[in-house]
Amino acid sequence: MDKGFGLLLNLVRGRKPLVHHITNYVTVNDCAYITLGIGASPVMGDSVEEAADISAAADALVLNMGTLSERAVASMIAAGRSANAKGIPVVLDPVGVGGTKFRSAAAVRLVSEIELTVIRGNISEIKFMAGLDSKTKGVDASEAVSADDAGQVAKGLAKKLNCIVVVSGAVDVISDGSKTAFIENGHPMLSSVSGTGCMCSSLIGSFCGASPNEAFAAASAAMACMGAAGETAHEKAGHLGNGSFRIALHDAVSRMDGETLERLVKYREV
Amino acid sequence: MDKGFGLLLNLVRGRKPLVHHITNYVTVNDCAYITLGIGASPVMGDSVEEAADISAAADALVLNMGTLSERAVASMIAAGRSANAKGIPVVLDPVGVGGTKFRSAAAVRLVSEIELTVIRGNISEIKFMAGLDSKTKGVDASEAVSADDAGQVAKGLAKKLNCIVVVSGAVDVISDGSKTAFIENGHPMLSSVSGTGCMCSSLIGSFCGASPNEAFAAASAAMACMGAAGETAHEKAGHLGNGSFRIALHDAVSRMDGETLERLVKYREV
Amino acid sequence: MDKGFGLLLNLVRGRKPLVHHITNYVTVNDCAYITLGIGASPVMGDSVEEAADISAAADALVLNMGTLSERAVASMIAAGRSANAKGIPVVLDPVGVGGTKFRSAAAVRLVSEIELTVIRGNISEIKFMAGLDSKTKGVDASEAVSADDAGQVAKGLAKKLNCIVVVSGAVDVISDGSKTAFIENGHPMLSSVSGTGCMCSSLIGSFCGASPNEAFAAASAAMACMGAAGETAHEKAGHLGNGSFRIALHDAVSRMDGETLERLVKYREV
Repeated sequence: MDKGFGLLLNLVRGRKPLVHHITNYVTVNDCAYITLGIGASPVMGDSVEEAADISAAADALVLNMGTLSERAVASMIAAGRSANAKGIPVVLDPVGVGGTKFRSAAAVRLVSEIELTVIRGNISEIKFMAGLDSKTKGVDASEAVSADDAGQVAKGLAKKLNCIVVVSGAVDVISDGSKTAFIENGHPMLSSVSGTGCMCSSLIGSFCGASPNEAFAAASAAMACMGAAGETAHEKAGHLGNGSFRIALHDAVSRMDGETLERLVKYREV
Repeated sequence: MDKGFGLLLNLVRGRKPLVHHITNYVTVNDCAYITLGIGASPVMGDSVEEAADISAAADALVLNMGTLSERAVASMIAAGRSANAKGIPVVLDPVGVGGTKFRSAAAVRLVSEIELTVIRGNISEIKFMAGLDSKTKGVDASEAVSADDAGQVAKGLAKKLNCIVVVSGAVDVISDGSKTAFIENGHPMLSSVSGTGCMCSSLIGSFCGASPNEAFAAASAAMACMGAAGETAHEKAGHLGNGSFRIALHDAVSRMDGETLERLVKYREV
Repeated sequence: MDKGFGLLLNLVRGRKPLVHHITNYVTVNDCAYITLGIGASPVMGDSVEEAADISAAADALVLNMGTLSERAVASMIAAGRSANAKGIPVVLDPVGVGGTKFRSAAAVRLVSEIELTVIRGNISEIKFMAGLDSKTKGVDASEAVSADDAGQVAKGLAKKLNCIVVVSGAVDVISDGSKTAFIENGHPMLSSVSGTGCMCSSLIGSFCGASPNEAFAAASAAMACMGAAGETAHEKAGHLGNGSFRIALHDAVSRMDGETLERLVKYREV
């Protein structure tokens, strides 16, 4: 199905957007690799002394709450305002929101002080952001809901915050509050890899940075890209273990081309 | 020999304990991978604002002093007290203790303010903790002692602190102050991998989180698992270099099963 | 051509210098691997409470500005002074200098308060350090100049700061203000790997730590080693993607021997 995802991928590779990350120190290296692999350029400076200046020179900003501190929140707000002033896309990954009071309060503050383009999380995180009962335990997805239910949650939050909401899961859901897309790519082994969600957010930042006026399609293409790469990686290295699978995932993203992406994507929209 | 290690491994995979790490930013990603690979779930939040809350929701806590700061020590103490209050196992990895005054003072403080389940280090680190003359230089093991001597040091420290002491080395030693186990698995190439010790501590946290009432056996099984995985990794990728060996090590841990672990382990106890 | 690089490599493997890094959390793990791979021993403690003490026990110090903060600058200055007092080599990697005011001011401060042995950067970073018009965008090289022009810039900065200047690029340039070397090894795929520059600085620290009185030759050998390893890695894994290429790069450094290095290096000096 031609959703134009191949074109969007080519735009990333052609425009090489500079993607500013303020992110956690657990998966930051994977985020850098996936950003380089898709053809964008990562920069990770996170101190409050320079966060706003870095965002002012960037094409997109990714805020990832993985290892959060008061210092990081201050940097995120400074960078987010700078990104808003410049008009570049801002992606929020509210890792583990709902897990601690500090984390939840920080997410509320980020949402209220920064205009977001995309929020991406697992279903527990997105339900919490939507004000619903959620079961966050640690940083990995811990509850199962149907894709249609996830779609309803995403749609509601997208309307509420006037941004695009992405729910990662066996089926990825992307909603802008009006239309909702479902992508059925990927492989269960992606959950054996640390930072799959973080890497998705980096890809969304990369695609949105290259096509800021088509954020819904860009976010969808990013999720399709990760899902398709997960399938390729599983075929090549799934039998070897989670170390080899991770490397094969990086490889697959770095070698993904528009034609392959279009061929592999399983997309429907309501 | 049936030490029940296979059963303990199956318990990790079945119970998927949430293992809270406050750890260094050098090897944190390897710790996350090894924790996921063995079947547990890692969470790494380390800010003092939420460390206690994260431990309160976890099944085990791992405190790793690799890149230590005053902030990290405060978070470790908050998390450690929370873990003690909840009654979950606490593992301390006193990386580089003895190397600087700051690091040594921090270790003393952690030991006095937190009730530990396991301390794991190389012989220099464990000798320092035991109040003996030690030769810590950097973060890698820098002195050779016989396994029996290491066993005596471990036994003495275990009695003194009323916890389990693990000394990593060519022969791994585990003592609870009464009995002492020796595990002769592993491969010299493990010392070419950054973070082997840190990963051992993550595995100990994972096994103890799944079997908190059998910490001695759990710590032994964790060390056996790393040693056996090191042997498998060397067979598969040792000739390729330290990059491939690391990936093969992750793979081997993620694919380790109880039967293989029981078959490979070389264990004796006195 | 026998430049003695093989001997310098053997000295690293024989002396196992302890290389203290104060570096960024994005590529720190790759720096640890490359340092272990070449035969040196990495230690990464970066808190102001112990930075000076760690450097006092080390054989070389690497200061990398990748994810800079006010705290890191304070630690770098404390460590740098300690290294100067002990007389061990100090390598500065001014990542992204020119990109923000904070970063530029920090670099100026480091250069004025610490006596440097080597500065290594891409051409934009080195031009900024030399007081020339530069185009730093993010942390990756963003302008093309001829090797001869890079040589002139390096020579001028080396004279000005009385240290060795290394410019990484398609052709690497090393100057001590008097003689200038050009190394034409490497492969374009190295720019698809996160932290290539950081790893070069770690190698320079490792070689200089083993041969502190031959810093020009040591820095040249380090760059030759990375370039040659990049060629080997591309042959083995370039077709697979940037994940496999990274692992093959680690492998190639860890398996590099003096004879191979001498055979592969393409060196000229003016």
